[in-house]
Amino acid sequence: MSYIFNYTKSFQLESGKILPNFHLSYQTFGKLNADKSNVVWVFHALTANANPLEWWDGLVGYHKVFDVEKYFIICVNVPGSCYGSISPLSINTETGKPYYHDFPIITIRDMIKMFALLQKRFGIEKIHIGIGGSMGGMQLLEWSIEAPNLFEHIILLATNAVHSSWGIAFNQSQRMAIETDVTWAEKHDQAGLRGLAVARSIALLSYRNYEPYNLTQRETDYNKIDDYKASSYQNYQGKKLALRFNAFSYYSLTKSMDSHHVGRGRKSIANALKTIEAKALIIGIKSDLLFPIEEQRLLAAKIKNASFACIDSIYGHDGFLIENEKIERIIRAFLCKQKIISNCIKNNLTVVLNNN
Amino acid sequence: MSYIFNYTKSFQLESGKILPNFHLSYQTFGKLNADKSNVVWVFHALTANANPLEWWDGLVGYHKVFDVEKYFIICVNVPGSCYGSISPLSINTETGKPYYHDFPIITIRDMIKMFALLQKRFGIEKIHIGIGGSMGGMQLLEWSIEAPNLFEHIILLATNAVHSSWGIAFNQSQRMAIETDVTWAEKHDQAGLRGLAVARSIALLSYRNYEPYNLTQRETDYNKIDDYKASSYQNYQGKKLALRFNAFSYYSLTKSMDSHHVGRGRKSIANALKTIEAKALIIGIKSDLLFPIEEQRLLAAKIKNASFACIDSIYGHDGFLIENEKIERIIRAFLCKQKIISNCIKNNLTVVLNNN
Repeated sequence: MSYIFNYTKSFQLESGKILPNFHLSYQTFGKLNADKSNVVWVFHALTANANPLEWWDGLVGYHKVFDVEKYFIICVNVPGSCYGSISPLSINTETGKPYYHDFPIITIRDMIKMFALLQKRFGIEKIHIGIGGSMGGMQLLEWSIEAPNLFEHIILLATNAVHSSWGIAFNQSQRMAIETDVTWAEKHDQAGLRGLAVARSIALLSYRNYEPYNLTQRETDYNKIDDYKASSYQNYQGKKLALRFNAFSYYSLTKSMDSHHVGRGRKSIANALKTIEAKALIIGIKSDLLFPIEEQRLLAAKIKNASFACIDSIYGHDGFLIENEKIERIIRAFLCKQKIISNCIKNNLTVVLNNN
Repeated sequence: MSYIFNYTKSFQLESGKILPNFHLSYQTFGKLNADKSNVVWVFHALTANANPLEWWDGLVGYHKVFDVEKYFIICVNVPGSCYGSISPLSINTETGKPYYHDFPIITIRDMIKMFALLQKRFGIEKIHIGIGGSMGGMQLLEWSIEAPNLFEHIILLATNAVHSSWGIAFNQSQRMAIETDVTWAEKHDQAGLRGLAVARSIALLSYRNYEPYNLTQRETDYNKIDDYKASSYQNYQGKKLALRFNAFSYYSLTKSMDSHHVGRGRKSIANALKTIEAKALIIGIKSDLLFPIEEQRLLAAKIKNASFACIDSIYGHDGFLIENEKIERIIRAFLCKQKIISNCIKNNLTVVLNNN
C-alpha cells in the first residue's frame, strides 16, 4: 500500500537552506505486530521507487527471505526522486511554483532525518532489520550512525562510507550531459530529458563492466563497420530512463550521492562507523567498478559487529539487484548466525560468511 | 619536420564510399639511412598528433630508446583527426564545402591503406620497428596483418584485436553527449564543442579508474556537501579538450576505433593474428579498464613471435602515456632479446619479459 507522509513544518537542511514543508511517499507490506518488533526497513537506490517487490522481488515478497507474511516492510521514496516524495518538480509553497533548478541539495543525512520523522509518526522505536544497496546503503549507514540504537540488524550491499572521487566524477559527467541539453535551462518537467538519456548511458558503464558488455552485446556479424549492438543498447537504455524519470530528480539525487560522507562533523569515518551498535552484514561484489570491494571491506573492518561476504558476479555493481539467489543465501546465513532463523546447520547456511 | 602527403586520386573506403582525394599530415625526425633500414614508425592514439616528441617524450627524442640521432622516425596524423590530415573539416572537392556530418567512416584498415601509399612514396620496403598504443596499436596491428613482411618488429601497447562491446559502449555514450549539444546540427567548425567537453569527461573515466581519482581528486575538506574537486576536474578536462579539438573529428575517430576488428574478412581473429611475421612485443597494463590485460594476453598468445609484459600501474589505460620508465625498460629488454641493442645482461634487461 502506498501512503503520503506530510510534514507541514519547516525543515532545515544541512546546506542551511530551509524547506517550508515536505512530503514523503512510502509503501508498506505486511502487518506491524503488536510489539512493533517485526519491522524491515528497505532503502532504495538512485532511480528506484518505494516498492521493493518490483525491483528486489528475489528478496522481498511472499515466502522470500523478507516475507511479507512475517515482516512489516517499509520503503520510503527518497526526497528528490520522481516517485512521489518532495522533488524538484514539487511546488515550493513559498513561491507557488515548482522548485526546478532551485531545489536545494538534500544530503543523505537530510534524507534519513526526514525518514526519522516518519519513524516517530509510526511510533516505531526499534527496526528489526534495515537493508539497502548502493545509495540505499548510504542512507541506512547514515541512519545507523545518527541513531545507534534504532536498528537491531543492518544489511549493507555494494555501498560505502564516503562517496569516492571516482563516483563523484562519474556523477559529474552525467550532470554535464544534462547541462549540455539546451532544454535543461527551461522550467518544465520535460526539460533536459535528452541529456538525461546520455547520463543514463554513462551510468550504465559504471554499473557493469567489460565482461557483461562483451557477453550480452557481442557482435556476431564480423563484417559490420558501424551500428554495433553496444551502441544501440546505450541509446535504448538512455531513452528508457528518460520515459520514466526526469532530469531534475536525477540531477538532484546524484548530488545527494556525492554528499555522502559519514565522517562529516564526526571527526573521522572510523569514528563514525565505530558508533554503530546494530549487528551488520556487509555484502560486496568483487567485480563492482563503482563501489569497489575495498569500500565494503572498510565498512566490515570498522563496524563493531560486522559479518562480511563477497559475491562473485560478472554483473559488477548491478549485481546487487541481479544476484538475488546468492544474496538471499548470504542473508539467510546471517539471520541464522543472529538466531533469527533456525535450521541453519541442516541447510549448510553458516559457511558463506566470513567474519573479517 | 612537418609535411603533407597529397594523394590526388580517388580512394575507396571499406564502407564502399569514395574519397575523391586525401591528404595526410606527417612528421619525421632524424635521418633515413642509405639502405633505409632505420625506420621507426610511431602510431598515435585518439586525440594525439603526429609529434611523438610531445606526447611520448619519455620514449622518443634525443638519447631516448627511440633516439632521433639513430632512427628515422615517422608519425602520421590519422585521417579524421584535427591535426592536419583529411578530416570532417576538410573541403570535399566534389561539393566545394567541408564534409562535416557527411564525413565517411574511416576504418582502422582504411587508415593503414592510406599510410601504405605514403610508405611507397618514401620507397621504404621494411620498417625496422613499429610502435603504437591504444588506437595507435590498432593501426599497427592491422598493418602487420595486411602487410606481413613490412615490419621487422612491432611494439603494441594497451591495444586489442577487436574493439570490445564495452569500448564501443563508452564511445557511444560520448557520441550521444555530442549529439545532445544543440549546436552539433550546425555546419561550422565550432559545432558540438560543449558536447565534446562532456565526451572527454566520459572518456577520462575509461582512461583511469578508482585509485588515481581517489589519489589526485580526494577532498581534504570534510565539511563540503557540494563543489567537489572531482567535479571541477571533469569540467576542466572537458573544456581543455574542446579548446584543442573539434567535435567532428572526435566523433569520426571514435567510429574508427569501433570499427577495429582484425578478423573482418579474414575468417577469424586467430587466423588474422597468426599471419603476422614481425617479432612482436605486447605490453599491457594491469589496471587498464578500457583495454583489459586479457586483450593483450590474447594478442601475445596468437601472434607467432610474441613477447609479453604486464605493467603494474595505478593509472589504468593512461599508463601507456605515463609509465615511460617502465615501458622504456621493457622495450630495451625486447630490443636486447632481438639483438638490436647490446649490454643486456650487464644492464639486467632480460628479466622483465615473459614469453607467454
